[in-house]
Amino acid sequence: MTTVLTPHEAGQRLERQLAFVREIDRLKGVLRRTTLHDGSRPENSAEHSWHLAAMALVLSEYAPSGAEVSRAVQMCLVHDVVEIDAGDTFAYDTAGYVDKAEREQAAAARVFGLLPTDQGIALRALWDEFEEGETPTARFANALDRLQPLLANLATGGGSWQAAGVTRSRVERRMGPIERGCPNLWPWVCAAIERATREGLIRDDAIGV
Amino acid sequence: MTTVLTPHEAGQRLERQLAFVREIDRLKGVLRRTTLHDGSRPENSAEHSWHLAAMALVLSEYAPSGAEVSRAVQMCLVHDVVEIDAGDTFAYDTAGYVDKAEREQAAAARVFGLLPTDQGIALRALWDEFEEGETPTARFANALDRLQPLLANLATGGGSWQAAGVTRSRVERRMGPIERGCPNLWPWVCAAIERATREGLIRDDAIGV
Ligand SMILES: [Ca+2]
Repeated sequence: MTTVLTPHEAGQRLERQLAFVREIDRLKGVLRRTTLHDGSRPENSAEHSWHLAAMALVLSEYAPSGAEVSRAVQMCLVHDVVEIDAGDTFAYDTAGYVDKAEREQAAAARVFGLLPTDQGIALRALWDEFEEGETPTARFANALDRLQPLLANLATGGGSWQAAGVTRSRVERRMGPIERGCPNLWPWVCAAIERATREGLIRDDAIGV
Repeated sequence: MTTVLTPHEAGQRLERQLAFVREIDRLKGVLRRTTLHDGSRPENSAEHSWHLAAMALVLSEYAPSGAEVSRAVQMCLVHDVVEIDAGDTFAYDTAGYVDKAEREQAAAARVFGLLPTDQGIALRALWDEFEEGETPTARFANALDRLQPLLANLATGGGSWQAAGVTRSRVERRMGPIERGCPNLWPWVCAAIERATREGLIRDDAIGV
């Protein structure tokens, strides 16, 4: 902010910022298919976003060259806020994906629109960049968004894979963005999927093909 | 990392990083006294940390001069991980505060000690800086850590204040760090406490004194 605000304008600006802060509290009530690592309950999208942001810090050395870690952290923090309106679409739910983009665009306009215009534009840009998944920063954040539920499913003996009867080739496709977004983690991911399939956590659809 | 790791060392480094990522999942199970804004359930420390980090972005213009916003975001992300071992100590629980520091030091050593040494030191330094609360960045993060439950209590008609019969002078003292950490938000906070007292959400211990 370079312009000087009147006290009235400053008050209005703060009220819009607090409206956004209050609104995103609702992300704590949006449930995902993955559970906590102890299997006790489904994870919500707010704590998932926190986990991703912390992973962006801890796993920053695996980001592709050109990625900005602090921007990736910010991206992780806001990447799911549209779910307040649009809900979480389960990764392996094909039907839910049909109007996902439309619902999420409307949600982004509303939720980021609560903020003062300059901040709404800046945070919306983070979300758009994540969704497009093209910049090194966005590729890194998207990779973490796949790795995080992978770790939960491995910790819980299959978790949401088991519940949905998901096959190995779908898991491999789903984890694909990790190859571009955390190239040095990809061998670990492939080995983990291989092991999980051997242990029966993932249904092996390659058998007999 | 400037030294080149052997494949074996690189694998061990990754395992330590993943051990930390898995361990902090437990923060999602540490419950706080404040509830979600809809009052439906207690908030956990992971989603609280996410909310703080997002607030650090949205409210960055209220940080004191010299604060580094991206460091404040990182600080918010890790500021509560010691609660995995030490638990959340309710802000208005005097007894719980007696051995709080000792329990938290031991927890910090264990939890950050899961990481590769260089990263353990860096993240522990973030936590120490937050706890000391002296740098502009730490003062900002500490202010947010007070403001976030204030917003929840205001949203739920008193929330944890009501449950514990907390008085106005204790709330004012508890919110004190906001004056140094977000000076331009302090008048708003004082007005909010004044209004909450008038509405009976906080017990007014100034009456008749
Ligand atoms: Ca996500």
